[in-house]
Amino acid sequence: MSVAREFASDNTAPAHPAVLEAIAAANTGPAHAYGADAWTARAEAWFRDTFGEGTSAFLAWNGTGANVIALQAALRPWQAVICVRQAHINVDECGAPERFAGCKLIDVPTPDAKLSAAQLEAAITGVGIEHQVQPRLVSLTQTTEYGTAYSRDELAALCDLAHAHDMLVHVDGARIANAAASLNLPLRAFTRDVGVDLLSFGATKNGGIGAEAVVVFDPELARDLRFIRKQSAQLASKMRFLAAQFIGLAKGDRWLANASHANAMALRLADGVRDHVGVTITQRVESNAVFAMIDPAATVRLQERFHFYVWDDTTGEVRWMTNWATTPADVDEFIEAITDALPA
Amino acid sequence: MSVAREFASDNTAPAHPAVLEAIAAANTGPAHAYGADAWTARAEAWFRDTFGEGTSAFLAWNGTGANVIALQAALRPWQAVICVRQAHINVDECGAPERFAGCKLIDVPTPDAKLSAAQLEAAITGVGIEHQVQPRLVSLTQTTEYGTAYSRDELAALCDLAHAHDMLVHVDGARIANAAASLNLPLRAFTRDVGVDLLSFGATKNGGIGAEAVVVFDPELARDLRFIRKQSAQLASKMRFLAAQFIGLAKGDRWLANASHANAMALRLADGVRDHVGVTITQRVESNAVFAMIDPAATVRLQERFHFYVWDDTTGEVRWMTNWATTPADVDEFIEAITDALPA
Amino acid sequence: MSVAREFASDNTAPAHPAVLEAIAAANTGPAHAYGADAWTARAEAWFRDTFGEGTSAFLAWNGTGANVIALQAALRPWQAVICVRQAHINVDECGAPERFAGCKLIDVPTPDAKLSAAQLEAAITGVGIEHQVQPRLVSLTQTTEYGTAYSRDELAALCDLAHAHDMLVHVDGARIANAAASLNLPLRAFTRDVGVDLLSFGATKNGGIGAEAVVVFDPELARDLRFIRKQSAQLASKMRFLAAQFIGLAKGDRWLANASHANAMALRLADGVRDHVGVTITQRVESNAVFAMIDPAATVRLQERFHFYVWDDTTGEVRWMTNWATTPADVDEFIEAITDALPA
Amino acid sequence: MSVAREFASDNTAPAHPAVLEAIAAANTGPAHAYGADAWTARAEAWFRDTFGEGTSAFLAWNGTGANVIALQAALRPWQAVICVRQAHINVDECGAPERFAGCKLIDVPTPDAKLSAAQLEAAITGVGIEHQVQPRLVSLTQTTEYGTAYSRDELAALCDLAHAHDMLVHVDGARIANAAASLNLPLRAFTRDVGVDLLSFGATKNGGIGAEAVVVFDPELARDLRFIRKQSAQLASKMRFLAAQFIGLAKGDRWLANASHANAMALRLADGVRDHVGVTITQRVESNAVFAMIDPAATVRLQERFHFYVWDDTTGEVRWMTNWATTPADVDEFIEAITDALPA
Repeated sequence: MSVAREFASDNTAPAHPAVLEAIAAANTGPAHAYGADAWTARAEAWFRDTFGEGTSAFLAWNGTGANVIALQAALRPWQAVICVRQAHINVDECGAPERFAGCKLIDVPTPDAKLSAAQLEAAITGVGIEHQVQPRLVSLTQTTEYGTAYSRDELAALCDLAHAHDMLVHVDGARIANAAASLNLPLRAFTRDVGVDLLSFGATKNGGIGAEAVVVFDPELARDLRFIRKQSAQLASKMRFLAAQFIGLAKGDRWLANASHANAMALRLADGVRDHVGVTITQRVESNAVFAMIDPAATVRLQERFHFYVWDDTTGEVRWMTNWATTPADVDEFIEAITDALPA
Repeated sequence: MSVAREFASDNTAPAHPAVLEAIAAANTGPAHAYGADAWTARAEAWFRDTFGEGTSAFLAWNGTGANVIALQAALRPWQAVICVRQAHINVDECGAPERFAGCKLIDVPTPDAKLSAAQLEAAITGVGIEHQVQPRLVSLTQTTEYGTAYSRDELAALCDLAHAHDMLVHVDGARIANAAASLNLPLRAFTRDVGVDLLSFGATKNGGIGAEAVVVFDPELARDLRFIRKQSAQLASKMRFLAAQFIGLAKGDRWLANASHANAMALRLADGVRDHVGVTITQRVESNAVFAMIDPAATVRLQERFHFYVWDDTTGEVRWMTNWATTPADVDEFIEAITDALPA
Repeated sequence: MSVAREFASDNTAPAHPAVLEAIAAANTGPAHAYGADAWTARAEAWFRDTFGEGTSAFLAWNGTGANVIALQAALRPWQAVICVRQAHINVDECGAPERFAGCKLIDVPTPDAKLSAAQLEAAITGVGIEHQVQPRLVSLTQTTEYGTAYSRDELAALCDLAHAHDMLVHVDGARIANAAASLNLPLRAFTRDVGVDLLSFGATKNGGIGAEAVVVFDPELARDLRFIRKQSAQLASKMRFLAAQFIGLAKGDRWLANASHANAMALRLADGVRDHVGVTITQRVESNAVFAMIDPAATVRLQERFHFYVWDDTTGEVRWMTNWATTPADVDEFIEAITDALPA
Repeated sequence: MSVAREFASDNTAPAHPAVLEAIAAANTGPAHAYGADAWTARAEAWFRDTFGEGTSAFLAWNGTGANVIALQAALRPWQAVICVRQAHINVDECGAPERFAGCKLIDVPTPDAKLSAAQLEAAITGVGIEHQVQPRLVSLTQTTEYGTAYSRDELAALCDLAHAHDMLVHVDGARIANAAASLNLPLRAFTRDVGVDLLSFGATKNGGIGAEAVVVFDPELARDLRFIRKQSAQLASKMRFLAAQFIGLAKGDRWLANASHANAMALRLADGVRDHVGVTITQRVESNAVFAMIDPAATVRLQERFHFYVWDDTTGEVRWMTNWATTPADVDEFIEAITDALPA
């Protein structure tokens, strides 16, 4: 079959060649299992170099796996997570957070998938009352499910507020690379340095075949994490092949180049259609996603050649995602098709 | 560093080149995520061809993941699993079965890691008594943690007995390929055809980089399994790279050749040392493991050049494992070293 | 200390003398444990007489206990409960539903703590999509956390809608007696007869010392419930003393008299203050609760002599609850105090 | 029906009149709910007086409830409990410990239901190895399921050993009163003073209608316990009626008198039959249970008039239990019947 042009998800992208090369390079003879190998040591060292001394990185299979490990490290079952309504942990993980951590998610409706300090403060209720779950963790997605990015100052303010309430801060960084590219900041500057306690670090969407990491800055939080990872079925026996993916992406800062490119492609797309009378861009384009309102009839026609999701049936809002493999030609073809499909 | 010869585990083996080739072949442009791709369809078809119509296969990351998915599909939390004391689910998964399924494992001591029908019958107690967990699933490991294999007749008898007690049968087949090679039977002949209900099918130890499958023969048991897999954090977004591993191993029955080779290497090793006065082989060598009692002082010397585990500190029993990448030369060198290390 | 007049909760009421008498009457010599006694048989028979053949009643300690048993009977962990934001299971059980059932609660904001059919329909999303929890149970509180009551027709419509979507209906009936009194209907008429599948039946607030029951109408749903009750630590060894509480309340329909009286006291209170310019009754008074907006300064003065809760700090809304032991004199004294405390 | 004489369980006993009187005495007007009442304060004070400053007592419904609260306070899910095979938590709670705490029980076979220090030491394995559950809690039953008692020295040695391995010690004291009577020691002397960390304190079997307590000596362990209790559905709304049971049993040390009497009745029974050639007493009679081997045919005849359990079908071992309400006449009648039923 002729493959449709892909604007559905960064999960539909292939692996970057550098990742496959690194996997092949790790495939040399025997190696100790479960992470006691040289490649895992190198990947862990990269995390320490990137985030500073005291950083622990625990490789895991996938984003949900990394998130539920982080939640279990931070929470007891009677405690609660505060997150936005749209958070992946809230709506796209089939209840895994509740199942693994035993806890409740307190979800806050937001227009742009970003939690404000005022919203966080308002959601911290019932502290000390045994009838209610006890807020203990804020989970922020960076970049967000709507492609928006928290600024360094916003993150610092949220972390300060959380810590003032004896809460920890988790960042679901399935797209943390896109955030670094968007903010033009080192990874550490908008995570550890502003007070983030735990980070789910994504590699899969950014050129991997399937590899994420739970990154923890406080040794106390990290202490039992390897038991949690094992009990959560996220410990790889041949871990060198997870590690290799990080090594491949770390080499020459391929991770940043991939994310920057994906972001640029989204901006190119948004810029190419935003002046068209039939297109309303509904979210700030701050990473690799474009949310837009277009005529549903045009959507139907476009979907014959381009793969993308309708985000909201009731409004006609659609989501267009780019990834490391999206080419300018892909984007330009899509812009032309959108323009053609819509009345001028 | 100079790598020690590896007889520690089949998890220390590299990936088979055919697996990496299949991964590379799957890395062509975009593909639908979460299993809606052509490679996953091919892998699923291979399972249907192998095990017959009505078979469902759900790819997962690792063996613990496959096992806990299977357990959740088969059990409610007040029900219990009967297994041998040595079972991987009982001693090597950090309590994941209890955590995911909520249930108790009733573990039966055995000399050879094989459950007998009499032991199974004796372990089925308390049925209908609300104070006690209700036996609902037998979990058998094939080949076992001691490298032994259940025969087809043994499995048939255990399945019949389990079903007569309204119980289901799960096979932890992390080394199911070694069993097929050992029994010289088609996979189906000693699983579905004898009454096995659910199977954890392993590819990782047999040449993969990290891929297993939950294989289910009863559509009713399979009905909710994709929700269980997702909630258990075992759903891969870029599933084509899990599927490719099965495709690589299926091609030309590479899975069977790999396992047959590993088994042959274990037999070569056992045959090479069994007549030595200082060596007592402690388990039947029916797959890719050799258990033996040797002088602990010799073990210390051998471990300088060869990597393997002491199984039982109190008796000096050791475990030597072979894998698809073990060469006859590796084995012969090891035999010579063992012979040299032990007093004649 | 001089006890303040109590309008805080129906949990602050003493036990009805008929309940203590029944307990004393059951305290005659030995009796089989865990429910195999004559008193439990009588209590179970009362439930069958009340709700019809095929009814199973499982006595439990408390409301949260009954609710989590019911949820476990109805749900697997990847499924979800739809309920109103204010539901006791959502905000007052410290996450017990998520912890016991493993599942997510989808909570719907409502002005009157009643779920409408349109809201229910809108909340049923993601069916068949493995990334999302699967709606499987509607949980309705009757009477509601705001003292309002679902009519028989409303319940019938909600049950029909739920069943049409392959969902079950649970009623949290901690105050089901107040509902029966309010609707002036037999218990069965607005539960089983309209399609309710599981009912948490409350006795504690209505004159008990601590006794609830999970009532199930479908034998299939009831099948494993005694194992769930035991594993949930809700099986009483000396169950006759739970059963006696139901026997005491059943005798002469004391349960209905108690609830009718509590409802009448709330209405007397509401009627006594509703015309006062400083009082705004904020919810329909359909059972034993009055929600009202009054001047917060008056609340402070009133709380010196009367015990009640401020419901919403930001609006000054208060909750006044009556119970079986509230006297007309208590109410009249309170009315007078309210009137005095507020500027005319 | 004519009730059989009861030697089946201490759960079949009625409540002691002092308990019902205390409940009636607590039934005076309104009282704050959830433990903020004067009776709960008195019960808590009794625990502090009995076990010393810093003691926290959390009232709960039943023994399984108390046990699972204690386990959750002491354990994270990847940790393990070491207990004897016969432990109530291992065989009589339908998997509640695994379900609530998420953890594995490592059960040790013993002839007398008592764990020895050597057995404990041998069971502590896999420490620091992420593939295995991490031993963190020893749970001892006092008196044991076989009616035997740990001496103060035995407990001290077990506690020292556990603490040396960074483990905590829980005592399942469903029959702690019988132990105090048996050892002739103050409750504190063989619990807190020897190093016990958490205690499930039983009142139900000793004259209550249904009341237990989790008693904790380390404030750090107690810190989150009220949240655990609530989330575990063990928080009573009208807690005064749980507290009253402890008040009734505390008055005039009724708890000790009840237990001493029950123990004396068991000893009277054992002494009355032990010299008979047809009776073999199989366990030391150190509390309120007698285990004996008699001719199964005699058992059948005896069970027509006396209610008791066959403990082991294969050996003919039976269990005879006494309780606070057993009279010397009951015992003598039973002795005579046993003697008559057995060939001289």
